[in-house]
Amino acid sequence: MTELIGQTAAVLTTCSFIPQAIKTIRTNDTSGISLWMYSMFCIGIVLWFVYGVLIDNAPMIYSNFITSIFAWIVLVYKIRNTISKK
Amino acid sequence: MTELIGQTAAVLTTCSFIPQAIKTIRTNDTSGISLWMYSMFCIGIVLWFVYGVLIDNAPMIYSNFITSIFAWIVLVYKIRNTISKK
Repeated sequence: MTELIGQTAAVLTTCSFIPQAIKTIRTNDTSGISLWMYSMFCIGIVLWFVYGVLIDNAPMIYSNFITSIFAWIVLVYKIRNTISKK
Repeated sequence: MTELIGQTAAVLTTCSFIPQAIKTIRTNDTSGISLWMYSMFCIGIVLWFVYGVLIDNAPMIYSNFITSIFAWIVLVYKIRNTISKK
């Protein structure tokens, strides 16, 4: 039961950035999205990935790799829109 | 060095939702924010918290507690704006 809770948590938080990335690509609406949040989160998630590699933890490597793809998509859109607004 | 990378990653991903929550409270702009993302993420982070309690892991408990406060603020704003739009 404990492991099931952990696995469900991992799947939910890992996959949660997928609908955000899809929405951002479709609408290009990043006005309500925080540049600070995605900057911190994207760097953090890359460090989690590096940490996973260093301690040789496969679930940490895979989940952070997946999350980072989608989080970085949102960050790139946000940076692009922030620059083009200026 | 490895532990420093892990700790920096934890601080960045945990605190990243603070600027998002501040932005959302200030602007009330949730149009670009995915309801699916925050629904999945908020449930996931609560399950991480529960998992932390079950395996008695203090850093997991604290970090997910902090993240969940700010992520839930964003989710509540998003739900409120989604309902009031209809």
